[in-house]
Amino acid sequence: MSKVAFIGLGAMGYPLAGHLAKRFETWVYNRTPAKAEAHAAEFGSHAVSLRETAQADLIFTCVPVSRDVDELARRLLPDLRPNTLWVDHTSGEPTLARETAALLATRGVTYLDAPLSGGVIGAQNAKATVMVGGDPAAFEQAKGVMETYAAKIVHVGPLGSGHAVKAVNNALLAVNLWALSEGMVALVKEGVNPRLALEVINASSGRSNVSENLFGQRVVSRSFPNTFALGLLAKDLGIANQVFQEAGTPAPLLRQLREFFEVAKREIGSTEVDHTAVARLLEKWAGLEIQ
Amino acid sequence: MSKVAFIGLGAMGYPLAGHLAKRFETWVYNRTPAKAEAHAAEFGSHAVSLRETAQADLIFTCVPVSRDVDELARRLLPDLRPNTLWVDHTSGEPTLARETAALLATRGVTYLDAPLSGGVIGAQNAKATVMVGGDPAAFEQAKGVMETYAAKIVHVGPLGSGHAVKAVNNALLAVNLWALSEGMVALVKEGVNPRLALEVINASSGRSNVSENLFGQRVVSRSFPNTFALGLLAKDLGIANQVFQEAGTPAPLLRQLREFFEVAKREIGSTEVDHTAVARLLEKWAGLEIQ
Amino acid sequence: MSKVAFIGLGAMGYPLAGHLAKRFETWVYNRTPAKAEAHAAEFGSHAVSLRETAQADLIFTCVPVSRDVDELARRLLPDLRPNTLWVDHTSGEPTLARETAALLATRGVTYLDAPLSGGVIGAQNAKATVMVGGDPAAFEQAKGVMETYAAKIVHVGPLGSGHAVKAVNNALLAVNLWALSEGMVALVKEGVNPRLALEVINASSGRSNVSENLFGQRVVSRSFPNTFALGLLAKDLGIANQVFQEAGTPAPLLRQLREFFEVAKREIGSTEVDHTAVARLLEKWAGLEIQ
Amino acid sequence: MSKVAFIGLGAMGYPLAGHLAKRFETWVYNRTPAKAEAHAAEFGSHAVSLRETAQADLIFTCVPVSRDVDELARRLLPDLRPNTLWVDHTSGEPTLARETAALLATRGVTYLDAPLSGGVIGAQNAKATVMVGGDPAAFEQAKGVMETYAAKIVHVGPLGSGHAVKAVNNALLAVNLWALSEGMVALVKEGVNPRLALEVINASSGRSNVSENLFGQRVVSRSFPNTFALGLLAKDLGIANQVFQEAGTPAPLLRQLREFFEVAKREIGSTEVDHTAVARLLEKWAGLEIQ
Repeated sequence: MSKVAFIGLGAMGYPLAGHLAKRFETWVYNRTPAKAEAHAAEFGSHAVSLRETAQADLIFTCVPVSRDVDELARRLLPDLRPNTLWVDHTSGEPTLARETAALLATRGVTYLDAPLSGGVIGAQNAKATVMVGGDPAAFEQAKGVMETYAAKIVHVGPLGSGHAVKAVNNALLAVNLWALSEGMVALVKEGVNPRLALEVINASSGRSNVSENLFGQRVVSRSFPNTFALGLLAKDLGIANQVFQEAGTPAPLLRQLREFFEVAKREIGSTEVDHTAVARLLEKWAGLEIQ
Repeated sequence: MSKVAFIGLGAMGYPLAGHLAKRFETWVYNRTPAKAEAHAAEFGSHAVSLRETAQADLIFTCVPVSRDVDELARRLLPDLRPNTLWVDHTSGEPTLARETAALLATRGVTYLDAPLSGGVIGAQNAKATVMVGGDPAAFEQAKGVMETYAAKIVHVGPLGSGHAVKAVNNALLAVNLWALSEGMVALVKEGVNPRLALEVINASSGRSNVSENLFGQRVVSRSFPNTFALGLLAKDLGIANQVFQEAGTPAPLLRQLREFFEVAKREIGSTEVDHTAVARLLEKWAGLEIQ
Repeated sequence: MSKVAFIGLGAMGYPLAGHLAKRFETWVYNRTPAKAEAHAAEFGSHAVSLRETAQADLIFTCVPVSRDVDELARRLLPDLRPNTLWVDHTSGEPTLARETAALLATRGVTYLDAPLSGGVIGAQNAKATVMVGGDPAAFEQAKGVMETYAAKIVHVGPLGSGHAVKAVNNALLAVNLWALSEGMVALVKEGVNPRLALEVINASSGRSNVSENLFGQRVVSRSFPNTFALGLLAKDLGIANQVFQEAGTPAPLLRQLREFFEVAKREIGSTEVDHTAVARLLEKWAGLEIQ
Repeated sequence: MSKVAFIGLGAMGYPLAGHLAKRFETWVYNRTPAKAEAHAAEFGSHAVSLRETAQADLIFTCVPVSRDVDELARRLLPDLRPNTLWVDHTSGEPTLARETAALLATRGVTYLDAPLSGGVIGAQNAKATVMVGGDPAAFEQAKGVMETYAAKIVHVGPLGSGHAVKAVNNALLAVNLWALSEGMVALVKEGVNPRLALEVINASSGRSNVSENLFGQRVVSRSFPNTFALGLLAKDLGIANQVFQEAGTPAPLLRQLREFFEVAKREIGSTEVDHTAVARLLEKWAGLEIQ
């Protein structure tokens, strides 16, 4: 790859594109141009117009939702060149991603859905995880570039698979967050020390990333840092629902969970708060704090 | 402690009492006497009558359900001596345990609820986790003895707390088992390789003990070894329900989950199968296998 | 029956005891004595002390919860005479009612659980429905007296059956209230006229007492008269849960519904509002009004 | 209207088109031509080719799903004449219906979604209920024709509203069927006579069409006549889900119910059985029969 473009310099995209700029000629585009200019100053990337990104050999997108990616594809379509690769790091929707891919294919551009996990820390430390769906040969091409910032890059299946796996992963995050909150408020009500309960659970069969990391650091500590918005997690549960719908497989628990998060968004009154705010909702319902 | 008694030589109790026999004069009792005799032969413990166990300084119980413990307490009551400690390793019910404790207190006997986690392997390797509820001074006394076979021994709160934490832990095990099954059947239907999906989830925010250990070893491998019966996990979900009921805190997800497991028991037609059989039920509903 | 006593002159009990006073010598007792005196003045009943009620041939109780009935039974126990009938119109719990019945039986008193439906209007118009559990011979004796104010009196089964049927009935009321609210907010959001939607549903297979009466009169009309408290309906769902628990039969929907009502109580912030307030909660979540 | 065409002579369509033939020149088309010929013989209608139906002034469709209607619209499109009315009696999907309507509008044809309730009996007795969405003027035109076989014809809102109201109605039917089944198996387990329980509920606040008609006639009677297939009711719950999705309003109960019916379809192993088969599933889970 001689030239890579990176569209979307948010909390994840900014450091990822920074890692790229160390190894590749990297063009960056952001809706707010100041961020692209800051990136260029910090990492030696090149702030370009949206239209210029179409000339890259490999285009990355890392934006809030699939609809944004599809709009970018439509706007860039006339300028895109055959054999360009488009790697989409958005946590998106399999169905819409397949439509975007079909559109890009009309210009000879290959699209891969490639959502990330590992959070902002993982992106900064070049330890991201990438789950990729789409053409295996295109995956092999893109993999080498993604190794710049990812510690684990896995081709999980056909087009849309990356988005599907990410949605299921985040649904599992959500189910652990909700279930542990239910359990902890009851235990606290019964006089149990929540830090000790977590310590025991983390040495037992019910442990999860949520019990081992999230809950102690954010809920029991009462810090609730704002790193992953409740609204985005609720969106991911909606995508998981689309996956279940398309697969036609029953998912009574995770579909129900999505409804709980939709209610939580409304009761909490904000989608911008950290996703751990659902623990506070359960606390409110229980009339106590987990501490 | 000069003499300890161990009642209940099941899959967990047998190795635990074995560790005890290396350091203490250990009397063992089992409903099927042959097992106690085998234990005596293997570990140098002493097979005694139920009534004789009442003469120990510390009595352990490790039986299927709290009802069994309560019956043992009633039968031994006339023979129990003041200042005896009774440590109950059963995965039991807080409410009934408090009744048993009150009964034993009439004879000056102190009861601690002290369920275990870590499974049979943990018990064999002297690496069990114990979560204990009850009198702190009695806990300190018992702790030294339990260190014979436990790597982590935590006093989590008042009488019944140990059972409550264990029930919540197992509910978290159950929710991960069910939710991951829902997610995986959908992913497989969409063409995703389940081993790769697990690999990615295990490097991401949705990971849990179930995704890291149980699912790969038992479900994707199609081995389904029979170590923890579905009926016992369903029982634990029922105990978790009692905890929620007593606490008076809402738990819409984990209470619903209990109903799903009750349905699963009936659809699977057995409570003796390994708890991972719920993954097979989801597979049946989805019309595919996770492999 | 020469003498009947009626304990509990609430919204239901007051008119019921009034009907009795027209045909029987009727002794009334209420915790707030002023109400009993007003009743005596209005209907010619006799306001008596609690202890005096024990001398009646037939004692009615109509109080908020089974716990109250059990306490009354304990207080009256020393004064009760053999062959007295105790008819309990409380919407109560089968299990506790059986305990109360066993206690009363020690004095030769026969207890029947006999909750009412038909609301305040039914009580005033002597058109109540009574569902009775317990001894068939005692039922036959009590039936003639209850005919004073009831249009339908049905012996549904053994002790506790009356309470169980009432709890299931009210769970069905609750499920229709919640489900119709979910449906109506969605229809209104889609531009449907809610009065016309109700008209059609009431001519179709989805109709219920809630769609035919409650919803038009209380929700669409925006009147929300306070006749049946949300807290009491939530209590009845809790009793239904006890019935399911005791029966050991799966009830995933109605158990889940109880959790929804527990959440609703907390979100609405009051248990005293009319039960139709759950429609307003769904409206809040939907961001619209059903009108 | 001088000429009407009726496409789809199923259990509902056959008698409806029969009523039409008494008042209008009626052309009938059915995929299996024998049925159309039988209809012509019985009612004096005219069996025509699909293509000929395009020449009618008013075209009725009454087929299993919206996809069928859309395909009919595509096939007839070249032959359709401006100002034709198309009234769709299918229990269909609002979204797809709006697409079909947009397609038909390109030829000047106005589409109304107009699902029916009242069942086969209602259709035979000319007592059907029709809920209609779409252009009010077109509704007025069609109403006069539908009065031939409908006792209640209501214009509920914009295009798609008829389908939406029907889906919600059927979700209410489904929720009553499921909830009453849960309640009745528990009551029977507790020794309650189910016929008496129904009698009481039908005189109380929990009554519904399901308790008043369906349950006694089909479940308690053990007759389970096959008139409305489980698979079709599950389909309607899926449409209700689409309505909730499009409206963006939370519907935790009715969305969960859809999952239960999807599970039921799989456990029952057939979508062709009568919808009351879910009562038998609950019976199986409870280990008893409601009788």
